Amino acid sequence: MRVTVQGRSQHYRTVTFDVQRNAVRLIEQRLLPHQFKVVAAPDFRQSARAIKDMVVRGAGAIGATAAYGLAQGARAFRGRSLPAFERHVETVFQTLKAARPTAVDPVNAMLQVRRATASGETVEERQALALAAAEEFANEDVRHCEAIGKHGARLIRNGMNVLTHCNAGWLAFVDVGTATAPLYAAQAQGKRFHVFCDETRPRSQGATLTAWELAQQGISHQIIADNAAGDLMQRGKVDLVIVGSDRTLGRTGEVANKIGTYTKAVLAHWHGIPFYVAIPLSTVDWNLKSGRSIPIEARDESEVLGAWGVVTGGRSTRRTYVRVANPTSGALNPGFDVTPPELITGIITPLGIFKPRELWAKRALLRAEALGRQSA
Amino acid sequence: MRVTVQGRSQHYRTVTFDVQRNAVRLIEQRLLPHQFKVVAAPDFRQSARAIKDMVVRGAGAIGATAAYGLAQGARAFRGRSLPAFERHVETVFQTLKAARPTAVDPVNAMLQVRRATASGETVEERQALALAAAEEFANEDVRHCEAIGKHGARLIRNGMNVLTHCNAGWLAFVDVGTATAPLYAAQAQGKRFHVFCDETRPRSQGATLTAWELAQQGISHQIIADNAAGDLMQRGKVDLVIVGSDRTLGRTGEVANKIGTYTKAVLAHWHGIPFYVAIPLSTVDWNLKSGRSIPIEARDESEVLGAWGVVTGGRSTRRTYVRVANPTSGALNPGFDVTPPELITGIITPLGIFKPRELWAKRALLRAEALGRQSA
Repeated sequence: MRVTVQGRSQHYRTVTFDVQRNAVRLIEQRLLPHQFKVVAAPDFRQSARAIKDMVVRGAGAIGATAAYGLAQGARAFRGRSLPAFERHVETVFQTLKAARPTAVDPVNAMLQVRRATASGETVEERQALALAAAEEFANEDVRHCEAIGKHGARLIRNGMNVLTHCNAGWLAFVDVGTATAPLYAAQAQGKRFHVFCDETRPRSQGATLTAWELAQQGISHQIIADNAAGDLMQRGKVDLVIVGSDRTLGRTGEVANKIGTYTKAVLAHWHGIPFYVAIPLSTVDWNLKSGRSIPIEARDESEVLGAWGVVTGGRSTRRTYVRVANPTSGALNPGFDVTPPELITGIITPLGIFKPRELWAKRALLRAEALGRQSA
Repeated sequence: MRVTVQGRSQHYRTVTFDVQRNAVRLIEQRLLPHQFKVVAAPDFRQSARAIKDMVVRGAGAIGATAAYGLAQGARAFRGRSLPAFERHVETVFQTLKAARPTAVDPVNAMLQVRRATASGETVEERQALALAAAEEFANEDVRHCEAIGKHGARLIRNGMNVLTHCNAGWLAFVDVGTATAPLYAAQAQGKRFHVFCDETRPRSQGATLTAWELAQQGISHQIIADNAAGDLMQRGKVDLVIVGSDRTLGRTGEVANKIGTYTKAVLAHWHGIPFYVAIPLSTVDWNLKSGRSIPIEARDESEVLGAWGVVTGGRSTRRTYVRVANPTSGALNPGFDVTPPELITGIITPLGIFKPRELWAKRALLRAEALGRQSA
């Protein structure tokens, strides 16, 4: 998407590859929204470090970083022995995998790259195939998001107010994003609308990342406290809700997403407001039989007890943590919640918009598409 | 309520009067929860300043501060002329009234004090009557809150999880509070229960004030992000919701309260969880015919765009503002919302628990009680 740097608007992806320098270039997301900077990881260990240290975050973005990182590591191999090359690639693979052990996207992305190299008969050929496959992974991520945008944009009409929660934006993918994709596509079609960004406590991704994205694209928006969504809906000021998803259960249509998503779904249902979830097919879980089986991630209480921000008036844009809450109190901090299918109007996928319970009936089609980028 | 200072647990009211020094003593609420300190306002102008500068806040607490401030000003008069005394008292009244021009409680409290002085035949007698009336106002505030506690405590059973929003605690009154009163009464009865405090963004009164109060009383509690309430209810972890109210419409049973209250009411209704509002009768508005007529206070966007807290690791407990949100985005910040009667299980008053729509039928009884402390 476009970012204005020193007065110039330019197109950026969150992750790109510098072929000359054999470097992975990343938007340094830990500095956002207070500072925009692109950093280069000069070798695969640095790429792994960038994933581990959250320089880059989000399913698609870390998938592409791992894909590029694998190609980067492969290309750094000096020698002609294929077995030695494969041993080296295995080291690269394990290093990148260990950077975010619970994430499935880096592993799926790297398996896709490795499969693509198998037909190469020399080290050089395999290195070239690895890079091509990594580029293809990134491009495919963008195409999927663009397809979500195309389908979702039909839901947005002139003058609408759209509510979003958290950040399922282009920063979490290579470009375009998922929950944001319909907004960007509608904007490209010349539609005019307004977006309310839930601040999304405790980590405030709506106030920081989504608001930054929308500001860069020139989309009219306001941040609201999570508490204000009900009031706005009651006063008729929300026409549509679009959120992303960390995991969608293919068997049941249940959606696990950032804490607070379920609350917004109940509110939308109560007010008769359409509630949509935008997802890449790689996040559909076809195995789990119930949302209750999803392990609840209890995150660190410090997130709830304070906030990260920039001290205003100072010269530094370095983020500082302040303790907001009573010093002798603790917090409970569930990281996500599960929204049942009866509260979801539709699920926007690259292949179209489906009712949540339709996913299972269409599983042959949807899994085939998703498997394009996963290990078979 | 009890506060532990340097290892010693002592009883405090938010506002008291020091007869020897003719001073109003106040808990310096701007330092909470990071520091506990009682300050003395040595004359009525300083008492007015304390109201204006938010040293003291909350309906009952500023009412009592104004009542004591008026007595304080009256007692500072030197002379024997009753007309000169009354002119002086009028100056004191106007000074204290101007400290928070939109609040009704200080004015009602001071009118009560002034009426009580009318029977005095000398300046000295009127000065003594003023002080007695101010003490009576404060004591009456406490009795009302204790009565709310007595009625509300019946709702709390052993092992319950209770959700609260914002702070309608003893810090907002002279003692005990309203939404917190049932908790303190249940604790005194030996009941054991757990409280979830909504952090209550954007001003975080739940994380700061309510959590501090509960910690001081030794009540088991955890702070949660406002986003987590729906998830907890879905998982059966909330048995009861109790909130306060800034204004309750006597004709309709609608409740205006801190932003986010309505969201919790919808969630509670959706999950079949009882939702109660605890109110002093002075906050019932018997005139307005619809919640839509309540003017929506649009508060400063800086509250949503950042947070106030203490930089951890530093030596200072001074609160610092950090900008959390994207620097080029704005916010919408409605200060409160309106909950309709169909979402409210009951309204806990000093005279008992009523259905919201019962208020109007019982208005003769309820208004008579409220008018005890208002201008007739």
